[in-house]
Amino acid sequence: MNQTATDRLERQMRFLFEADKLKEVLRRTRLPQSQRAENSAEHTWHIVLMAVILAEHAPAGTDVVRVMKMLLIHDIVEIDAGDTFGYDTTGHADKREREVRAAERIFGLLPADQTAEIRGLWEEFEAGETAEAKYALAMDRFQAVMVNYLSDGGSWREHHVTADRVFARNQVIGNSSPALWAYARNLIEDAVAKGHLAPKP
Amino acid sequence: MNQTATDRLERQMRFLFEADKLKEVLRRTRLPQSQRAENSAEHTWHIVLMAVILAEHAPAGTDVVRVMKMLLIHDIVEIDAGDTFGYDTTGHADKREREVRAAERIFGLLPADQTAEIRGLWEEFEAGETAEAKYALAMDRFQAVMVNYLSDGGSWREHHVTADRVFARNQVIGNSSPALWAYARNLIEDAVAKGHLAPKP
Repeated sequence: MNQTATDRLERQMRFLFEADKLKEVLRRTRLPQSQRAENSAEHTWHIVLMAVILAEHAPAGTDVVRVMKMLLIHDIVEIDAGDTFGYDTTGHADKREREVRAAERIFGLLPADQTAEIRGLWEEFEAGETAEAKYALAMDRFQAVMVNYLSDGGSWREHHVTADRVFARNQVIGNSSPALWAYARNLIEDAVAKGHLAPKP
Repeated sequence: MNQTATDRLERQMRFLFEADKLKEVLRRTRLPQSQRAENSAEHTWHIVLMAVILAEHAPAGTDVVRVMKMLLIHDIVEIDAGDTFGYDTTGHADKREREVRAAERIFGLLPADQTAEIRGLWEEFEAGETAEAKYALAMDRFQAVMVNYLSDGGSWREHHVTADRVFARNQVIGNSSPALWAYARNLIEDAVAKGHLAPKP
């Protein structure tokens, strides 16, 4: 390889070395079997798999490949910025600022054309306006409902989150897919019926 | 939704519930920071990301989207069959039989058309003959080299694996990408130079 090609691969590898750290970023959700905290890397694997398996429930014309790439990289900023719990209102105040700095540093490790592509996908996810971003967000939210449901209430119980807040936070799933939101709603209602989620404050 | 659509979504969700267990399957590799064992779900996230970022190093004409899907599902059989350590020769004797049973059970949870698609991707990966399967295998092997390198020898040290065996196992990376195999070789040589990997038995 010539020098330019070598530099390019070196930058790609530095990014992939750095990305490894996402496995150490813990979420509030707990795994059903071991009850250990889920990390953002394995969470991401799960939602990319969901995006593929549930693709027929996305609005017609959704580019599922772009969704897969968007999801793959959407949490990498947490390596610097940490995971902000969905039901934590104070942590959200400076979230955007922390995450933009992280995006600049981490995506900036890549060759310039890839920095632009990945940063663009991340901004698109954050803006939440395209069909792809909406379906990606639906996967992200639906997975957390799923894992909390499977772990008998998991982080909902632990952090005293009530069903009204779970409904409010997750209704965006319906913006992308009414069928998946209906399914998620059933899980939430079943968690209430089983006593794993308190109905109201 | 009509009954057929409801049944279909129910099957997809059962598969996605089951897939969650891949987060509890431990590999021999250890994470550089915490030194805990890496699990197969986060490993999979890392290699799908690698497949995207390193796509230009795959042979021309490689369908990277099929590689992404192939990698996403390639380890799911480990939920039943367990992870077999790459340098463990005895564990490989009945690996295929255990994994085929697992594929039948777990992929069989999906609607029939998706069972066929995902099972087909898994068999393609296992056969290792197409350009996509070779590039997918290169990602799988290269990532283990990377994580062992980043953890100062990690599972190589722990299991007394020597450089000759690391070279022998990973040279398949070169079947898909000479540039990535050259990079991996440098990592292995550097690990030997640093005393993190014994040169020979």
